[in-house]
This record gives sequence, structure tokens and C-alpha cells, in this order.
Amino acid sequence: MSPQQAGRPLGVAAIGYAFMGKAHSQAWRNVGAFFDVPAVEQRVLVGRDPEAVAEAAARYGWAESATDWREVIARDDVDIVDICAPGWLHAEIAIAALEAGKHVLVEKPLSNTLAESEAMVAAAVAARARGVQSLVGFNYRRVPALAYARQLIADGRLGTVREVRAAYLQDWLADSESPMTWRLRKETAGSGALGDIASHAIDQVQFLLSDTVTEASGRLHTFVGQRPGRDGALEEVTVDDAAWATLALASGAIASVEASRVALGRKNSLRVEVYGTDGALAFDLERLNELEFLDATAPAPEQGFRRIVVTEPEHPYLDAWWPQGHIIGWEHTFVHQARDFLLAIRDGNPPSPSFEEGLQVQRVLAAIEESAAAKSTAVQL
Amino acid sequence: MSPQQAGRPLGVAAIGYAFMGKAHSQAWRNVGAFFDVPAVEQRVLVGRDPEAVAEAAARYGWAESATDWREVIARDDVDIVDICAPGWLHAEIAIAALEAGKHVLVEKPLSNTLAESEAMVAAAVAARARGVQSLVGFNYRRVPALAYARQLIADGRLGTVREVRAAYLQDWLADSESPMTWRLRKETAGSGALGDIASHAIDQVQFLLSDTVTEASGRLHTFVGQRPGRDGALEEVTVDDAAWATLALASGAIASVEASRVALGRKNSLRVEVYGTDGALAFDLERLNELEFLDATAPAPEQGFRRIVVTEPEHPYLDAWWPQGHIIGWEHTFVHQARDFLLAIRDGNPPSPSFEEGLQVQRVLAAIEESAAAKSTAVQL
Amino acid sequence: MSPQQAGRPLGVAAIGYAFMGKAHSQAWRNVGAFFDVPAVEQRVLVGRDPEAVAEAAARYGWAESATDWREVIARDDVDIVDICAPGWLHAEIAIAALEAGKHVLVEKPLSNTLAESEAMVAAAVAARARGVQSLVGFNYRRVPALAYARQLIADGRLGTVREVRAAYLQDWLADSESPMTWRLRKETAGSGALGDIASHAIDQVQFLLSDTVTEASGRLHTFVGQRPGRDGALEEVTVDDAAWATLALASGAIASVEASRVALGRKNSLRVEVYGTDGALAFDLERLNELEFLDATAPAPEQGFRRIVVTEPEHPYLDAWWPQGHIIGWEHTFVHQARDFLLAIRDGNPPSPSFEEGLQVQRVLAAIEESAAAKSTAVQL
Amino acid sequence: MSPQQAGRPLGVAAIGYAFMGKAHSQAWRNVGAFFDVPAVEQRVLVGRDPEAVAEAAARYGWAESATDWREVIARDDVDIVDICAPGWLHAEIAIAALEAGKHVLVEKPLSNTLAESEAMVAAAVAARARGVQSLVGFNYRRVPALAYARQLIADGRLGTVREVRAAYLQDWLADSESPMTWRLRKETAGSGALGDIASHAIDQVQFLLSDTVTEASGRLHTFVGQRPGRDGALEEVTVDDAAWATLALASGAIASVEASRVALGRKNSLRVEVYGTDGALAFDLERLNELEFLDATAPAPEQGFRRIVVTEPEHPYLDAWWPQGHIIGWEHTFVHQARDFLLAIRDGNPPSPSFEEGLQVQRVLAAIEESAAAKSTAVQL
Repeated sequence: MSPQQAGRPLGVAAIGYAFMGKAHSQAWRNVGAFFDVPAVEQRVLVGRDPEAVAEAAARYGWAESATDWREVIARDDVDIVDICAPGWLHAEIAIAALEAGKHVLVEKPLSNTLAESEAMVAAAVAARARGVQSLVGFNYRRVPALAYARQLIADGRLGTVREVRAAYLQDWLADSESPMTWRLRKETAGSGALGDIASHAIDQVQFLLSDTVTEASGRLHTFVGQRPGRDGALEEVTVDDAAWATLALASGAIASVEASRVALGRKNSLRVEVYGTDGALAFDLERLNELEFLDATAPAPEQGFRRIVVTEPEHPYLDAWWPQGHIIGWEHTFVHQARDFLLAIRDGNPPSPSFEEGLQVQRVLAAIEESAAAKSTAVQL
Repeated sequence: MSPQQAGRPLGVAAIGYAFMGKAHSQAWRNVGAFFDVPAVEQRVLVGRDPEAVAEAAARYGWAESATDWREVIARDDVDIVDICAPGWLHAEIAIAALEAGKHVLVEKPLSNTLAESEAMVAAAVAARARGVQSLVGFNYRRVPALAYARQLIADGRLGTVREVRAAYLQDWLADSESPMTWRLRKETAGSGALGDIASHAIDQVQFLLSDTVTEASGRLHTFVGQRPGRDGALEEVTVDDAAWATLALASGAIASVEASRVALGRKNSLRVEVYGTDGALAFDLERLNELEFLDATAPAPEQGFRRIVVTEPEHPYLDAWWPQGHIIGWEHTFVHQARDFLLAIRDGNPPSPSFEEGLQVQRVLAAIEESAAAKSTAVQL
Repeated sequence: MSPQQAGRPLGVAAIGYAFMGKAHSQAWRNVGAFFDVPAVEQRVLVGRDPEAVAEAAARYGWAESATDWREVIARDDVDIVDICAPGWLHAEIAIAALEAGKHVLVEKPLSNTLAESEAMVAAAVAARARGVQSLVGFNYRRVPALAYARQLIADGRLGTVREVRAAYLQDWLADSESPMTWRLRKETAGSGALGDIASHAIDQVQFLLSDTVTEASGRLHTFVGQRPGRDGALEEVTVDDAAWATLALASGAIASVEASRVALGRKNSLRVEVYGTDGALAFDLERLNELEFLDATAPAPEQGFRRIVVTEPEHPYLDAWWPQGHIIGWEHTFVHQARDFLLAIRDGNPPSPSFEEGLQVQRVLAAIEESAAAKSTAVQL
Repeated sequence: MSPQQAGRPLGVAAIGYAFMGKAHSQAWRNVGAFFDVPAVEQRVLVGRDPEAVAEAAARYGWAESATDWREVIARDDVDIVDICAPGWLHAEIAIAALEAGKHVLVEKPLSNTLAESEAMVAAAVAARARGVQSLVGFNYRRVPALAYARQLIADGRLGTVREVRAAYLQDWLADSESPMTWRLRKETAGSGALGDIASHAIDQVQFLLSDTVTEASGRLHTFVGQRPGRDGALEEVTVDDAAWATLALASGAIASVEASRVALGRKNSLRVEVYGTDGALAFDLERLNELEFLDATAPAPEQGFRRIVVTEPEHPYLDAWWPQGHIIGWEHTFVHQARDFLLAIRDGNPPSPSFEEGLQVQRVLAAIEESAAAKSTAVQL
């Protein structure tokens, strides 16, 4: 821990109070009630609009609000900087905070460009050497069912993994009349479904298998090329609505990845299926408390995908919550993330996913974009 | 086998050519193509309307048709009498056929009254002593998933069974305007959902657990008390639309049974759940190729109901059909029934469910009716 | 609101810090971050063990702890008393708190005896006349899917409801070696699965249908009659492990209810199926974000139970949480309960379920016990 | 119909009596019992081993057996030639049979090479002009749920289709010790999972959307490169175990296709998901009686994938079978195929899928192979 922090709770500053800021706030507000972690205080919430951020701070449990993130990261009573701002701001804030000696949690994607992400990695490496920790927010690693899936794979219960089928399907852009936003412009969002949600699927592939993508072939498509802007005039959508890729991994496994924000009826369906030589797994984020597991070493007539309700005290993170069968929700993944980050800070153990891991995911995204621009010709990483 | 039959195929006569006659006909037509059974020939189909039964015979693969079942059961080239006529005709035909030395397969329920069924049992017992076999058509015993479920229970995989939840839900009478039929009059149908479908559920309880009901408490209800007759005038419905019962079994297990023909959206949903001290099972006839099995002897975090696709060659009856995953249908249960009956005849082993077993189910039904008429007060069997 | 409260946040005192105390604490801690409710403060947590309750208070966000609930309900800065203590303490605390002018939220069951509950109702009625509100914690009414189910039924989307199938299945007592606890003794727990979980199922039947049970037939059973006490010696279990009932409702509908704490593999499976003349619904608490709805007014070939992911902003309570498809958990029901109670206090509208409704559920439980003791003979309410 | 056939049943000859021969035989044996089709007779079954084919003929209901297919297709009493032999024999037999004036049903794939298939198409076109019909056996078009899915799409219920996710997953080659067979050599099988099962998925994409693939990018992989031959020595597997593709369609829709014969736990899982602007569909062959349909024109809170049990009389083919909810099996697709072929012959309407359609699927397969050999670079069709 930082010297100045000794003897008092860790102070947190969060930057951004939209969707992600709300989710991270509840994590900081609740983590100590469920997990044995260092004491933590929600010191300050940062945003551009002073009135709105003040209201959000009051609502979400922050002691103060502020509008200048540079001042905030300079404060002695701030130990952790939690970056929930849009991607184009990540690099500047994260690097400054790390250099100021603050532990940094940054939402995914790490940033919007490889160059920025590389600079962030350099800052994180340097900071880590000084005991300053950093983490990129692929929160789905903290879904208990997925953390348990990784354990089963690491324990060899699937044998050698051959194939992964990963998909992240949403439908909030299915309506062609849904309006233009910053998420639909390349300059602000970086990419569309690819960076927004395929990134989660790709991170899961590498996380679950403890493996690395070495080759990618991809395709991107924009089904709705123009959407109404604020004045009603049609504007160009410059990012993808949907993305497809096949990935080769270092181990020899092959993964297919599909992402869409126009898959009608799928609300938040991150699905992963993993097929090995001795077993298989299946998961869907819309049923995040369940994991399907096939043990192919059982006698053939007894085999079948078993629906494990991942709420036993032996399951990852679950001993902190409720009795078995009392399911948890999407937001709990952020509580788990906060817990793991706090423990990493306390113990001085660099947490995962590191900025390097975040960068690796972006390299895969970049390879998919490159392949998509070249008629899907496979690109080596 | 009967002496006269030596050296030639077993001749079958079927009586009735409606729904059940059609289902049984396909069984006789196909059983030899899939199973190693004695050769069998569809000799004659019997019905009251000479033109209609002739047409049905031609369509369903019968060599001849006839209108007088007494003449047919007297024929030397008829070895098996398959009774698909309505319940009120079962006793007379079955007893005559057994006395004529014919093996008899009779659709469930065994008959409409306990007295008739007792006479049928007496005839079956006497015939059995002469090597003449008989079977009552609780065809769902031949659903592979249910036959496999019984195996698992008999093998002790569930430990001691404590609770069974059985239900048979259909909705073909949900529409209050659906017309009056013989199935809705007590004098022709005996009872409603109780005898028609709860009987299957009760048979399954006893079959799966190899156990016997010793006490029953029940309730019957008619939601649609009048229905339009042929001339449009409303007629009284004198049987139940739905039935509920709790059953105590000799082993100490307790079963709940529910049956309805007005459960909207449930088309043919015979569901059974069995809970023991070491495991559990769940089944739904609308997914008859699947069995859910929980093995509670596995480590807690790995437990879950596994969906077994019951199409492996090791599963009951399945080696005769198609490769794994190529599912079978409802009608296949009748092919399995024909197979087992033919093998029983060949080997001289009395098959199950016997007429005695059919009578036992009817005694449970009678106890439920008696209880229902006495404010659900439990009745001992 | 109470005069003394004007101009400051509502002060809450909670009594009990075990499972329910933990769940209620998170509700008070979070309700203001998600819902527009009167400001509320977690003033004091009450328990018998001073050290343990102090630690729990710190962990769960309470300003103070205390050991004497009588002192606490006398405090001017306490406006709401939230009773999470065991059932045998409910009546005394609730009546005293109501008489002291405090709004009272009491966990279900209302109390362990009808006499106590009747006294509580009298106190609640008197308090209500003075603007003091009370609520009994059947929290599953605040599962969005169930609240939405009630809406659909109230809107006539199911037509006339005929049948309800309700079951609450758990398995935490399936192991015969699981030790003796106060929950297994009649004098402390009142009853077993019946009061603990069948009560929720019965409340749902009446809640969903806006209807009242008028007759009950029941059966109770204890599968594990003795369990090891603290010293290892076997002690008598004096409550039921499982309960079954059929209920007639004022509307003419009939419901079956089944509850078990020994149903292996079912962790927290409150299931409800409702069948009407125009539609049907199905729900399982293990998938609490989902509701299955059948609309039988659609053309027959298009009909089917649709799996609604109940996370749209139009669904009850959901506009406060996350984007569609981002599911919530079991504990959120308590946040919704806190919200509704706070709004009721603010607006002076008596909330539901009232103590009267809690008493009505207990009367049904008592009728089931009476029936079970009389060979399941139906009892009128 | 052929002149010589007038006044007598259509005579069928089947060539091949393995898995497909068994499946087709049951179709010819049963089609007339369920559908109103021209009378048909199982005249002769053809195979190389005289004893084995004679036994199969007797078992499967054929009047005769034979070993020389050339003699058989010359017979006057044979009107239909049903080719169930391996793919490398298709072209020679089919062309000869068509030239002999016989209606030809050939199993998929049409043949093992594009050149052969083109010759077959030429023969089919010429024969068609003479009233001689031909059909390629993509039997899954006759799964009622898929035929109904096509109807819904054609009726505009999905709006404009954007994305299709198709996969065909099996696991019968998951075991690395599973022995070498002709299906694993390129010279006999043509390809592996690609031609065997991805072909079905690709046919479905085009069938469901009434659309045509115009571009393909693909990847093929062999996970088990060597398998034990008859003498136990390892032999090279020269076909793929798994295949991946993205397909662009003429309409602008994009489809992903994945096929594997090593996906542990998936027995016969042909899955299709279709996402349009107004609705979506999902299907799995392991539950072939079910179709999931989302109608996005319903109010948002009521939307959800509805599980349609495709057994209503209004559903394709279903009026011939059993009451609602009485499910059918995999083999019924062949009965439907026989029915449609017989009606096409009777009415002189060329049936679908034609040889041209079979060739089109093969062109897609060839494009995938070409792309896979060129680092997944997309290939135009």
C-alpha cells in the first residue's frame, strides 16, 4: 500500500457516472459488506457537469464530487482511481494516475488505439515495479460460473480443449430508427460490436483456456448504414453492427467468435461453449448463475450436460453471498472485481487481467479488423 | 406358442382403428424391421363400419378387415388379439379371446369398472397357466428414458426414494366450446382426466419405483360443466376435467399426482420428478428423448441435473434404431410394446404390465374417486 | 410521516443480523442509489451479542449497534423498525414498535401462532389509523417477473384462471446427517417446510390471482425423524420436511401446493404455473429474471410459452437497474420491498402485503395442518 | 407418370441398405399409411453382398433383393430409383436411372465432385423435360419445425433477415482412438464434417431464407490427424474434423456456419438461429419438434422466444400423424420426403431440392475449401 495510506481506509475516486460509473459505485459501496477486504471509502466522483455529478455522487454514496480529474488524482486521500470515462480518455487519465502513484482500475477496452494502449502498458509496468497496481475491467472473468469454468479446464476436466464457440449477442441497435450516438462513430468508439462486446468474448476465450490467440480471420458488417442524428437528418454509421472471427490459439485450439448488436431477442447473451477431449462446457450470460458441464469420462449412457446452479459456497465468490440457489445478478461481477483489486493492493500481488492482457485483446481486435479489410485473409499475431 | 402356430408367422388381429388402432398398426407393421422378434403378420383389422374398416385395413397394412370380432378371435390363423376398442368393450373381448387361447394385448385402462377388470384378471391368470400371454398397454413404460429411469432407480442410483411429483397435463379440452363426446360421459368413459391420463402417471409412479400405492387422497373437478352436443344444445359433462392426488407408497415414499385436460399450452406433458436420498430424476413426455439425472454423490460444486439424450445404443430399445442423437417419437413406444409382447410369447415369460398391474392402477383410481367424494379424506388400499 | 421526522432522513433500526438481517441491510444501504425514495439512514442494528452485533453493524453499514430492542424503539431518531428476528419474537416487538409510532416491516411468517398474529393485526389496524404503516416481508411479491405476472393476470391476459400449480423445493435438509436446529423443532419454528416455504407459495397463489383460499386439504410428512444434536445424540424432529395441499379459491380456481426441503438438486426452486382460459404462465425462482407466458389468443400454430427476460425498463422495478438483459439477483427483491415501504410511508398509503394478508396466509397454513391431522379431510376457511 | 405405370402401384428400387437404406426403407414402408399418396411398392433392394442384401430386404419389407443395379434400373416394374449408396457411386447410377426414365431420389451430397454433379444436373434437366423427376435428399427440409420456419420467414414475420447462425455439431469422432473408415479419406468421402454435415447447415441457410450464397470464407481443421486402421497401424486422416465459414447471401444477409464431428456431448445438434428486423427464430435438431420464435412486433415487455411445440395439425406434415404434443422422430423426415416425391411424380411438378440445388450447395462447399486453402480469403461464387 502507499505509505500515505497506512492506518486509514483506501480512498477511491471514480471518473464517470454513467452506466459504468453507476455499476462501479455499487461495487465500492457494497464490497466491504460481503468480503473481507481492506476498508475503502468512496471519496470523490468526477464528471464534467458539476450539478449532475454532484447529484450522482449523493445518490451513489460518494462523499464529494469534482469536475477536474487532474486535481482529484493529485489528492493525498485518493489511493485508487477507477476510470469509467469513455475509451478515448482512458490513456491520458490512467497514465497520469499511475504516475501519481494511484492504483488504477480502467474499464475495458483498455483504450481506443493500440498506440495508446501500449503507452498505458508501459506506465503500468513502471508503476507495478513501485507497488502500484492496475487492472482492466473485463468483469465477466468474475462471473462465478465462468471463474468456475476456468477452474474445471485448468484442472483438466475437459482434457485438451479443441474448439470454442463464443458469441455475444445483443439487440439494442436492431431498430433501424434507433438514433446516432458516439458509440456508432469510429473516431469516438474505435469500433462497434467488435470492441464493445466481441472483446469480452475474446477475453473469455483466452481466460478460460489460459491460452493466447495467434491468428485471426474476420469479417465486419454494418447492417444499418445510416441513422437519424439529433436534428433528424441521417448520419453515417462508421462502425460495425456485427463481427465474426475464427481464431487459432497457441495450444492448437480453434475458436469462433460472433458478436452482434442487432440480434433481435438476445438481450445480453454472451455465450461460450468449450469442447475438449474429455468434457465440455456451455454458458450464457442471460443465465449467469448456471454452468452446463459434460463429463465425458462417465459411462456413455449417463453422460449429459449437467446444469450446475453456481451458488454453492465452494463456487468462486459465492461464500460471501446467500444460501445456495439464491441467485446473484450482473452487477455482482463488479463487486467481485473490486474485491480482487483490493486484495491485490493489500497483498502486493499484481491482479489479472493486467493492462498487458487488455492490450493482447486489442491486438486480436486489430487483427480481426485487418483481416476484415483484406477479404477475411487470416492475420498472424 | 400355440401349437397351431408352429412354423408360420404369428397372426395378429386388431380390434379398433381409430387413434389407438392407427398407433398399434404401425407397431405391428414395423416391429420386425427393427427388432429380432418372431415373424408376425397383420391378418385382420376389425371394426363396426365395413367400408371404413376396409379402407383403414388397406391403409394400415392389414391383409383383411372384418366386422365381427367373435368370428375373428375364433380363427386359427389369429394368434394375437390386440384390443384398441373403447374401454367398455375391453372385458368381453379380452375374456373371450383369452378363453379362445389367443394372446391378448389390451389398451389401458384395463376396463371401465373394477368388476370387469377383476374378471379379466381371472381370465388372464387362467390363460397364463396354459401359456397364453396378456398385457395392458401402458405404453409409456416403453419410453426409453423412462425405462432407463427405472433402471437407475433399481440400481440404487437415487438411494431411497422419498418423493415423486407426477403430472399429466394436456389442453385439448381447454376451450369451453369444445363439443361433447363419449369421453365426457361417465357411463362411457368411466372417468375423465383421472382414468385417461392420471392413470399413466400413477402407473409410472409404481413402475419407476417398483412400488405399490397403499393410500390415496384425491380431488376431482370439472371446470366446464356443460358442453354443446351435436345439436348445439348444452349437455352435462359428467367426468372430471382435472384430478389431484397424494399417494403413500408401501416403501414410505409419497407421490403427488396431478392431471388436467384444460392446462393451456401443455400438449402432452407427462412429467415425472423423483427425489431420493442420493439422486433425482426429471422427465417430460414432450421431450421424450431426454432424461434429467442428478447424481448427489458427486462433489457438491459439480452437481446438477444432467440432460441425458437417451439415444445411446446402451439405452433401452435404442440399439434397434438410429445413431445417437437421432431422436425417436411417441409412436415408437408401441413398437417397443409389440417387441416385448412378441418376445414374451416366444419365450413363455409373462410380460409386464400384467392385467393384475392394470387392475392395481384402477384400484388406485377408485380410491382417488372415493376420497374425492369424501372431502379428500384419505382412503387405504 | 411522523412529525418528529420532518426535515431529516428516515431513521431505520433493524433487529436481527443473521441471514435476513444481512439481506435487509443491503436493501437499506442501496435503495436510495437506485430508486427515488425519501432519504433513509441506517441508524442502529440490534442483536443480543454486543460484540457480534457491533461487528455486523460496521460491516453492513449501520451507524450504531445495540442489544436492547426496547430502548431502540423508544428512540426519536428511529422511524422504521425492521424485524428480522426469529418468528417467536415478532409479535412482542412489532406490537411495541407500532404502539411507539414506528413503521414496522416484519419478516414472514407474521408470527408462529394465530393468536399472536391476530394481536399484531389489531395493533397494525390501530396504528394505520394514526398513519403508521406496516408490512410483512413476502419479498417474492417484488420479484419483477412475479409482479409482472400479476399484472398480466389482472389485465385479463389469462382469461379466467382455472388451475395453479405451485411448489417450493429446496434440498438443504436432504442429508439425513444434517444436524438438529431450532428450525426443526415445533416449539421454536412453528412448522417446517409448511411455514418456511409453502407459505411463500401460498402467498403467491393469492397474490397472483388477487384471490383468497377458501378450503384446504393437506398432508405433512417428516422423512428424517431424528437428527444428531450438538452432542451427537439423535433428537426428534418435530416439524415436517415436506407438505402437500390442494386449495380451493373464492373464484373457483384450484391450486396445488407442494413444498419440500429434501428435494435433492432443487436449491431454491419456487415454481408457479398458472393456467387460465386464455393463457398461461410459468415461473421458477432459480431463474427469477424469466417469465414464461403463453398467449392462447394467438393462432394455434404460433402458440408457445415465450421466455420473457424480465429486464425491460417497462417491467416492474427494472427502470432503476441496468440495461436490458443485465439480470438482477435474489437480494434485489428486498431493495424493491424497501422502496415500496418507503413510498407507502411517504404517501400515507398502506402497503401490501399487510399484516391482515400475512394472517390470512397463516390461516391457510393452519387449515392445512388441521387437514393433515385428519387424514387430509378438507377444511373450510 | 410413366406410361407403363398406369394402373398399378409405383415400384421402388433402393440401392444401399446401410444406415440410409434402413431409413429410406421405413419411409417407403410407411408413407402410404399416413399420407394420401399414389400407391407404392417396395420392389427390390440392391446391394453387393447377396446374402446380406437378401436378409435386409426381408427385414425392411422389400419384395426382392438384387446385386446388379444396372439390371434393376432396366426393369419395367421399377419406377423410382432411390440411391442410398456412397457418394462416389451417385453420378453413375443416377444418370443411368434418369436416362432409363426412372424418377430418382439420391441421398446428399449429390456426388463427391463438382464435375459429377454437373453431369447429374444435365441428366436431371433432360429427364425433367420428359416428366421424369429427381430429388436430392436434404431431408431436414422436411422437419416440420424447419418447414414452418421457412413459412414464417416467407410470410415476412421476421422482416428482413440480417444474420443467420448455423451449426451442426456431433461427437462421434471425438475419441482419438475411434478407427479409420472410408468417411475419413478424401478419395472416398470427398470431405469430412464439411460435406457430411455442414452441407445440411448450408442447405438450411439457403432454404430458410429462399436465398443464395454469393461469397464464402472458410477454415477447415483436422484435430485427430491419424487414426488406427484395421491392423491397428495408424493411418492418415485426410478430411476435416471441423469446418467454419462465413457466408454472404444475395439478399445482403450474412451467415456463420460451423460443423464438427468432435464436439463432445453434441449428438446430432443441427442448430439454426435466424435474426431479422422484425423477429427471430431458433432451432435445434436434438429437439426437432420445437421451434423458438420471437415476434418483435409485440410490445417490448411481452417479447420473448416462444417455444412452439410443432405438432399442431396446421403445422407442415403434422395432420398425418398424431394428436398435438405426441412428438415425431428423426426418421419421419424421410417419410415426408417420400410423400413429397410421390406427389411431385403424381402431379408432374418438379420437386425441391432439385439436383441444381444440390449442386449449388456443393459449389458453396467447394468455395469454402478453396478459401480454407488460401488462408480464409473470401471466395466469390
